[in-house]
Amino acid sequence: MRLLGLDPGLRHTGWGVIEVRGNRLSHIADGAVHSDGAKAMAERLVQLHEGLARVIERYRPDAAAVEETFVNKNPNSTLKLGQARGVALLVPALAGLPVAEYSTNLVKKSVVGAGHAEKQQIQRMVKLLLPGCLIESADAADALAVAICHAHHYNTQQLWQAPAVAEAGR
Amino acid sequence: MRLLGLDPGLRHTGWGVIEVRGNRLSHIADGAVHSDGAKAMAERLVQLHEGLARVIERYRPDAAAVEETFVNKNPNSTLKLGQARGVALLVPALAGLPVAEYSTNLVKKSVVGAGHAEKQQIQRMVKLLLPGCLIESADAADALAVAICHAHHYNTQQLWQAPAVAEAGR
Repeated sequence: MRLLGLDPGLRHTGWGVIEVRGNRLSHIADGAVHSDGAKAMAERLVQLHEGLARVIERYRPDAAAVEETFVNKNPNSTLKLGQARGVALLVPALAGLPVAEYSTNLVKKSVVGAGHAEKQQIQRMVKLLLPGCLIESADAADALAVAICHAHHYNTQQLWQAPAVAEAGR
Repeated sequence: MRLLGLDPGLRHTGWGVIEVRGNRLSHIADGAVHSDGAKAMAERLVQLHEGLARVIERYRPDAAAVEETFVNKNPNSTLKLGQARGVALLVPALAGLPVAEYSTNLVKKSVVGAGHAEKQQIQRMVKLLLPGCLIESADAADALAVAICHAHHYNTQQLWQAPAVAEAGR
């Protein structure tokens, strides 16, 4: 089955698609969709919406996972992140995909084995876990990490419980 | 022309539609769309999306305005509000409507003449400015107040500058 990971941000929303077969993960594609900071907020959200809808249409994932990014800086930037995050959750749900959420700490634990890790460490582990992938940007690396995290948990929850159904659903 | 005002919230997003002819305002409809707190976040955002898309399809407004609600309580609730707000900005923009944003203070000033006003005072003024309207909920009253605020500013910016074009655009 194919999983889409998303690392939401208003300026750049990272995305990564991986293929899961049992315990084997492989890289399909990654990148980021961007919004133009000079445009009005509603137009920027439309840009993110259109970019993510294109990714889903092109790579046809079976499920999506979004990072529960937690910003503590100031309420205004948290509100802006929330708006981008709303679009990142909405677009795959509108396409009929189940959408999971994972905390940043759980994503890091799934990929590097610890809840606190540097960006570079995550990128190195993502490349190690998905051989042959050339990561386009830091946002894409985080998005692939979310997809890997979802694969671990989805595997545990879904595939091991009902492998026949999960295989049939591919 | 018809204006849609929106007061975003994850549980309840208020909406109000008014008709503007020169300086005359009239009430068309108001209400609130709801999301089910027991569902996953992505599904709740889909519920808000579908509810707002139905309102736009039914009442066919020419422009929309969204309140810049500012919550300072805690980052988590600000993030949740942001997600709902993202949907409130996105849905009219996807329908091709120009979407304006107004701060809560400016909305209050436009309706009651002061930046700080009680909920009840806003409701009384909304009823006074839109004779015959029965407001369904406090969220709807706030949404109508946003629409009234937009009418004042839209009037000033668009109708008075180029009445012929604005009339033709109805």
